[in-house]
Amino acid sequence: MATFVSMNMAVALIGNGNVASYLQQSLSKEGVNVDLYARNPRPQERVLSSLDPRSYELILLCVSDDALAEVSRQIPASPALVAHVSGASSLNVLAEKHSRKAIWYPLMSMRADLQLPIEAIPLCLEASREEDLLWLEEWTRGLGGRAYRVNSEQRPFLHLAAVLAHNFSNQLYHLAYTTLQEQQLSLEILQPLLEQSLKSLGQGDPARQQTGPAMRGDRKTIQRHLELLPDEQSRQVYRIMTSSIQKTHEKEL
Amino acid sequence: MATFVSMNMAVALIGNGNVASYLQQSLSKEGVNVDLYARNPRPQERVLSSLDPRSYELILLCVSDDALAEVSRQIPASPALVAHVSGASSLNVLAEKHSRKAIWYPLMSMRADLQLPIEAIPLCLEASREEDLLWLEEWTRGLGGRAYRVNSEQRPFLHLAAVLAHNFSNQLYHLAYTTLQEQQLSLEILQPLLEQSLKSLGQGDPARQQTGPAMRGDRKTIQRHLELLPDEQSRQVYRIMTSSIQKTHEKEL
Repeated sequence: MATFVSMNMAVALIGNGNVASYLQQSLSKEGVNVDLYARNPRPQERVLSSLDPRSYELILLCVSDDALAEVSRQIPASPALVAHVSGASSLNVLAEKHSRKAIWYPLMSMRADLQLPIEAIPLCLEASREEDLLWLEEWTRGLGGRAYRVNSEQRPFLHLAAVLAHNFSNQLYHLAYTTLQEQQLSLEILQPLLEQSLKSLGQGDPARQQTGPAMRGDRKTIQRHLELLPDEQSRQVYRIMTSSIQKTHEKEL
Repeated sequence: MATFVSMNMAVALIGNGNVASYLQQSLSKEGVNVDLYARNPRPQERVLSSLDPRSYELILLCVSDDALAEVSRQIPASPALVAHVSGASSLNVLAEKHSRKAIWYPLMSMRADLQLPIEAIPLCLEASREEDLLWLEEWTRGLGGRAYRVNSEQRPFLHLAAVLAHNFSNQLYHLAYTTLQEQQLSLEILQPLLEQSLKSLGQGDPARQQTGPAMRGDRKTIQRHLELLPDEQSRQVYRIMTSSIQKTHEKEL
């Protein structure tokens, strides 16, 4: 039965970057039998060419987007489900010969020091066959994880949204950090305020909780802030974000 | 003694906006005797003209920046400490006749439905006399609050940093929200990722944890994202934030 999922099934992880080592640790903790393979294995790892896919129910490719096609070609065809973990590549990047293809994409910044249980990470799933999707969903939920169906059409938009909300906010935190540091103040002072805006994130359009000078159309404060900023690059960020807020709220400077 | 602080001291709050009503509730909970005054009082509130400052140890002006000068002039001179709660006004906006002036500025978005104990809110303090600053610090900490000294030179930079990190991030969340909504996806899916970047906020420059296409110089993804964005306004946001990240990390498109 395609939807019968054993939690202690065997999984092969391929890769030796942050994602592979995070998954090796966290899946092992959940009782999954995990073996790690790499093209250039380190001690404790196996060489990719020795991989027998018939020994595994799931083969997770945790390699860079550029390497996915080539690595998937090196794996012999088998009944195992072959999946990659990338938000930037489609299903079709996996070699044609694999009849069961899937994506199991953890939506998280996978840094080497990530201390986060698998339960806390949204898993974005797609599969070439509906029964494999159901199977992956069941397995993911069995691990305690949050499974989301995200198809190939949606995935680029999800990645775009993550760049907007995550990478770009982080750059704004950096600009705030340098602004405060020059005044001997710590970014820590803003933490409660920033945490507060995440609390209501799942509840409708964040525009509804917008505050501040752009929203109020407070030209005097906007002008003063532009004078306080140290360079043209950060003034441009300030101007564009201000006019984006005002456009959203249909106000003008 | 200026630094002897009784927690059940008497405080007059002036104003009937969100800040005044939040402080009335949360200070009362901490055992502070609070009376609420307003120029146009509602039931349960007192009229400002009846305020006898000699009955209070602290008078907190929770009125708009534009009204601070006028309202502080309407309060008779007394030994009480007269403070405003604004991050955008200086000490000198308070009428000359008050010999003890201070700022007690809660760094939080004070919406009407704010459910947050006073302990969770950073309080930014300034006073015209060092002994009053010590007294305010002691009182604030007695309430369980986090007291930060922020002087008049620092305060505009703190406000600028809050606009950059808080208001502008919120606008990015809005752009991510609309991007996801058109694909029938919820912003909730990004919440763990965004919470993760706040966890290490107090630990040095956030630029160190930057990831994503701008950071990697991944032109192909940047180009595709620009094509996915629905209007020139949001493309401008994308371009400026991308080049701000690349400038910080000294990369170029």
